Amino acid sequence: MAGNSFGRVFRVTTYGESHGKAVGVIVDGAVPGIPLSEADVQVELDRRRPGQSAVTTPRSEKDRVEILSGVFEGKTTGTPISLMIRNEAMDSSEYESFRHLFRPGHADYTYQVKYGLRDWRGSGRASGRETAGRVAGGAVAKRILKETGIGITAYALEIGGVRGDIFDRDAIETNAVRAADPVQAGRMIREIEKAREAGDSLGGIVEIRVGGCPPGLGDPVFDKLGALLAHAVMSVGAVKAFEIGSGVQAARMRGSDYNDQFTIEGDRVRTRTNSAGGILGGISTGEEIVLRAAVRPPASIAKPQKTVGPGGREETLQIKGRHDPCIVPRVIPVLEAMVAIALLDCLLIHGMYERFRG
Amino acid sequence: MAGNSFGRVFRVTTYGESHGKAVGVIVDGAVPGIPLSEADVQVELDRRRPGQSAVTTPRSEKDRVEILSGVFEGKTTGTPISLMIRNEAMDSSEYESFRHLFRPGHADYTYQVKYGLRDWRGSGRASGRETAGRVAGGAVAKRILKETGIGITAYALEIGGVRGDIFDRDAIETNAVRAADPVQAGRMIREIEKAREAGDSLGGIVEIRVGGCPPGLGDPVFDKLGALLAHAVMSVGAVKAFEIGSGVQAARMRGSDYNDQFTIEGDRVRTRTNSAGGILGGISTGEEIVLRAAVRPPASIAKPQKTVGPGGREETLQIKGRHDPCIVPRVIPVLEAMVAIALLDCLLIHGMYERFRG
Amino acid sequence: MAGNSFGRVFRVTTYGESHGKAVGVIVDGAVPGIPLSEADVQVELDRRRPGQSAVTTPRSEKDRVEILSGVFEGKTTGTPISLMIRNEAMDSSEYESFRHLFRPGHADYTYQVKYGLRDWRGSGRASGRETAGRVAGGAVAKRILKETGIGITAYALEIGGVRGDIFDRDAIETNAVRAADPVQAGRMIREIEKAREAGDSLGGIVEIRVGGCPPGLGDPVFDKLGALLAHAVMSVGAVKAFEIGSGVQAARMRGSDYNDQFTIEGDRVRTRTNSAGGILGGISTGEEIVLRAAVRPPASIAKPQKTVGPGGREETLQIKGRHDPCIVPRVIPVLEAMVAIALLDCLLIHGMYERFRG
Amino acid sequence: MAGNSFGRVFRVTTYGESHGKAVGVIVDGAVPGIPLSEADVQVELDRRRPGQSAVTTPRSEKDRVEILSGVFEGKTTGTPISLMIRNEAMDSSEYESFRHLFRPGHADYTYQVKYGLRDWRGSGRASGRETAGRVAGGAVAKRILKETGIGITAYALEIGGVRGDIFDRDAIETNAVRAADPVQAGRMIREIEKAREAGDSLGGIVEIRVGGCPPGLGDPVFDKLGALLAHAVMSVGAVKAFEIGSGVQAARMRGSDYNDQFTIEGDRVRTRTNSAGGILGGISTGEEIVLRAAVRPPASIAKPQKTVGPGGREETLQIKGRHDPCIVPRVIPVLEAMVAIALLDCLLIHGMYERFRG
Repeated sequence: MAGNSFGRVFRVTTYGESHGKAVGVIVDGAVPGIPLSEADVQVELDRRRPGQSAVTTPRSEKDRVEILSGVFEGKTTGTPISLMIRNEAMDSSEYESFRHLFRPGHADYTYQVKYGLRDWRGSGRASGRETAGRVAGGAVAKRILKETGIGITAYALEIGGVRGDIFDRDAIETNAVRAADPVQAGRMIREIEKAREAGDSLGGIVEIRVGGCPPGLGDPVFDKLGALLAHAVMSVGAVKAFEIGSGVQAARMRGSDYNDQFTIEGDRVRTRTNSAGGILGGISTGEEIVLRAAVRPPASIAKPQKTVGPGGREETLQIKGRHDPCIVPRVIPVLEAMVAIALLDCLLIHGMYERFRG
Repeated sequence: MAGNSFGRVFRVTTYGESHGKAVGVIVDGAVPGIPLSEADVQVELDRRRPGQSAVTTPRSEKDRVEILSGVFEGKTTGTPISLMIRNEAMDSSEYESFRHLFRPGHADYTYQVKYGLRDWRGSGRASGRETAGRVAGGAVAKRILKETGIGITAYALEIGGVRGDIFDRDAIETNAVRAADPVQAGRMIREIEKAREAGDSLGGIVEIRVGGCPPGLGDPVFDKLGALLAHAVMSVGAVKAFEIGSGVQAARMRGSDYNDQFTIEGDRVRTRTNSAGGILGGISTGEEIVLRAAVRPPASIAKPQKTVGPGGREETLQIKGRHDPCIVPRVIPVLEAMVAIALLDCLLIHGMYERFRG
Repeated sequence: MAGNSFGRVFRVTTYGESHGKAVGVIVDGAVPGIPLSEADVQVELDRRRPGQSAVTTPRSEKDRVEILSGVFEGKTTGTPISLMIRNEAMDSSEYESFRHLFRPGHADYTYQVKYGLRDWRGSGRASGRETAGRVAGGAVAKRILKETGIGITAYALEIGGVRGDIFDRDAIETNAVRAADPVQAGRMIREIEKAREAGDSLGGIVEIRVGGCPPGLGDPVFDKLGALLAHAVMSVGAVKAFEIGSGVQAARMRGSDYNDQFTIEGDRVRTRTNSAGGILGGISTGEEIVLRAAVRPPASIAKPQKTVGPGGREETLQIKGRHDPCIVPRVIPVLEAMVAIALLDCLLIHGMYERFRG
Repeated sequence: MAGNSFGRVFRVTTYGESHGKAVGVIVDGAVPGIPLSEADVQVELDRRRPGQSAVTTPRSEKDRVEILSGVFEGKTTGTPISLMIRNEAMDSSEYESFRHLFRPGHADYTYQVKYGLRDWRGSGRASGRETAGRVAGGAVAKRILKETGIGITAYALEIGGVRGDIFDRDAIETNAVRAADPVQAGRMIREIEKAREAGDSLGGIVEIRVGGCPPGLGDPVFDKLGALLAHAVMSVGAVKAFEIGSGVQAARMRGSDYNDQFTIEGDRVRTRTNSAGGILGGISTGEEIVLRAAVRPPASIAKPQKTVGPGGREETLQIKGRHDPCIVPRVIPVLEAMVAIALLDCLLIHGMYERFRG
């Protein structure tokens, strides 16, 4: 209820501030008997880690995860899995100078109003570092989903106005922006470099595809699968829009074009098209689930900005240090994590997991 | 957990099928001592009712609400408010013919897979009629919010590709499509009429603006205000995309354009622009909250469609009867209801309601 | 969160005041495809109804239940089941005289303090009539449990200090107090009659036994099966104590007597004794679950009582009308309902229902 | 939903196994701006720690708590507080011998059935060590409650059949059993020593009193204050019965004796007696809240016991090592913690905390 938990039967609760002692997550409701190691989690954390490439921040966080509970002799036991990542000793002095300023685009002002105080070091709880707990929890969800046929793929569809044309799943992890179009990836990277040189930042669009999802996931009315996924995806700080299937374009289609007509393939009911993005009436159809998230440009830019200081005085803010000029590549594993958590929760809540386990 | 409830402290639970005996809602967590009458609820139900104008279905539902509990001597008592709307006797025979068919764009197939049986009369629980319970619950939320300065306005921003240019709040309830641009309203209506004549249907975009919202609403991390509102809005059947502030366009902006710079207005911290749509770090800033929902074209169209029948035989489906060619005007009060419920819940959960009550 | 719902996956939400228009319940999360009729619910409501015998209040409530949704062609559909019971027109004048008094043992004072106003007619929401919604919801739970081998039996173990010695299941519904000891039943009835003649009231103890429960129900730590059942049982207004297995006596036993030693019966692990009442570490063992609830004497008595009136003046209160001298016989179906709801919820939450369905 | 969380607005989630790497808790929903140090938590953990006196187990756990998040410059920030206690390196060899046996009175069998595997070292998650997380979370709740006038006192009312007669609050922490009757404390200690010498164990009864609680806490119907407290208290492993006010004795009283008559004291409505234990209609009256918990004798005893081993063979079990002959003194801080968490949650959920903060 204070917002640090997500999920119902499979539930993650995260904690931690950017420059505090540690960040982490408790994963409750994990299926027992699933093989799980620190390496399974570490590989996902490494995908989120800064300093992976020239287009992300060169800050180096080590981010070693430690499993504190819930795993015995290499398998989950069904009890809560506590995953902790110690923060390295951080230099908070760069933040000291705007301790009393509200940085534009950041949560400084709203936290101050809501709580009356805030941990101003490295954006505190509002830092992107908070997502390490999500990724760790999502790694557990992914490991459990691996026993079913469900697979989640996210990639940069568009960055700085450059949109990918083709979908090459194998290309995604081979380029610095995680684009599925290896040609456009190069152009996206150049746009990011230009923005960085200009002391500015860029946004983009991430597409998330879920394959192998059985029909019947999600509930009618308020907990439609699309609504739960919207909640999951929009809870990631930088996301300002969410789409399913045809998304915004559905508003410009006629019913005769939009409606996905049914057909039979073997003994399986399928649709000829997938405007609905794999969800009808809030329940999965068995077709690929297709989601998109629009990611805003990062708030920390080198360009000077106007803001308000102590006593209401207007001041000019100059943010130094090394910040991501585009968060898209690093937000991709975070979005995958959130989708994995939400889907596993839906599978478990109606006892469907066991049925689809291989 | 079965999806028929929404909200935490202020919580609505709806029930009812299209051709069943009644639809309704239990509203739990209403603030005590607030004046509430059946007329307060009826006025909102009438806005959702079919047959209001030439562009909506001419079916006539009477939809008289009855308050069964929770109100005493004209005031809420703090106990659950049960609101019931009897369904008129319905003729289900038009649905008999496709009892065993899966209508494209409808939830027939997914309900059948999920539950193993379904009430096929008038789409059953998956019918748009389900939203009557939401609107009734939202009317209670609106009445309670009225004691604060918070106001919610929703309107058709775009229909069938025709987009409004101006925002004239007073125009909204004076045209059949609830557009805020009275000139473009006429063009929208003509597009709908053309679609109807072609046996087809149209989608559109609804914009929702919340004024007078105090800063500090919403929680960090998973229950960001935008994530809760996304859940609320995306739970409405026809919605396929959700945006806050700059929305999808944020993906194409640079940080220096996107960031809303802070300034001081009197003794109040404000932003010069509102790209963020009134939410920073998941918490309201006190600026106007701006949301958009993309609404798909209705699934029931007169044009013949291909589908699958008993034994997997492909069949051609011809839907008769009178159906909305565009759901946008009627979905507007539903979206207002969902936003009202979500906001009131956020106000109550942190004890902020009393502070902002006039 | 405002307290009118119980359960997680199988969830009941009740509404209604004693002298309002109706009482009722929405049952969410019912298993689809289960036969359910109004008669299934009515039979349980009739067991709770006043005026069944000389030892309960001779007030006659008709209590006809109506199913408003969630059942189609005689079967549950998986959508919310709304059950409504219209209140007969009531004469509230007997309550008018103590509209401004706080009746001892009643919730008049605490509702007034909490809400600032209250529906004083017939105790409003705090009336025992509220339990009609529980019994209706419990009837649905019982019908669904019937498909498994789980059976719930509750009976008067003790009334007015008279304790039953023998357990004869068949005797329970044949005597006015629902005792399992038909000989002691007669003495219990006489104690109640003496109390009534004295203008007074009596309490008692109800024992609840659950047979056929599979091992593995309940969760460790905070949602131990016993803790959930305690929540369920202690939520019934008149209950002041709750026991599992040896209960209070466990505090006076030595470990060597208390511990239930394991043995093998066929291929099943069993315990030789059942001090634990069928629950170890919060999880069911497969042995009979044994619970007890201590029920206080009803608050409404004919004897004059001292209380506080308007302006803090002390007054003498004289309650007229016909009230139960002992609530035990009528609380039995309510306790069965709560236990059925809690158990079914536990079965469903971990996908165990399908496994134990016949 | 997997049972490792408790509370709604103020919510604790615990993790950890007895012989795993660490135990701990995340506290979500803490009021911001409250002074909190590791010492505030350590003092409560030390009260729960084994080896405090001759009557508890002489095992020595160091139990140093570390605050990982949620506190900045000595004050809570409103973000989740993560409290971790590293387990010392443990020798699990004593458990190796009954790795495949089900110890009577323990959760070995039920965990095995439920999860299909279990961490058998030191009882794993079912160990009493799990309560360290509760006590740490409760310490935060107590620190926040300290700002109001609410105080919680728990003590041994009865051990091994020896019952305290007098209530001397100052005596509680001065004797090894935490009895409020310093004379009977000596007799209780002797009973425990006799049981230990006999290779056996003893149970007892804890009474919990809450003073300074405002009227209006708790909700009607399913979340009555007594039901929430029952859930909290019965979730502690060793508790087999729960009472409020007159408790089981209420079943043997007449209404005229049981009903607490109202009176006026200054400008405050009070009751002359307190049979109800401070709760009417599920809502606090402002009188002292009085609860009792019956605690069973510990399951680990030196005496040989019969049980079932691999392949269903009956075996005799002999538990060695040092185990508490009576858990009552150490369960007292755990029960205080659970009551503190539940009460603070109730205060926060209706925005009452700020009103009662000094």
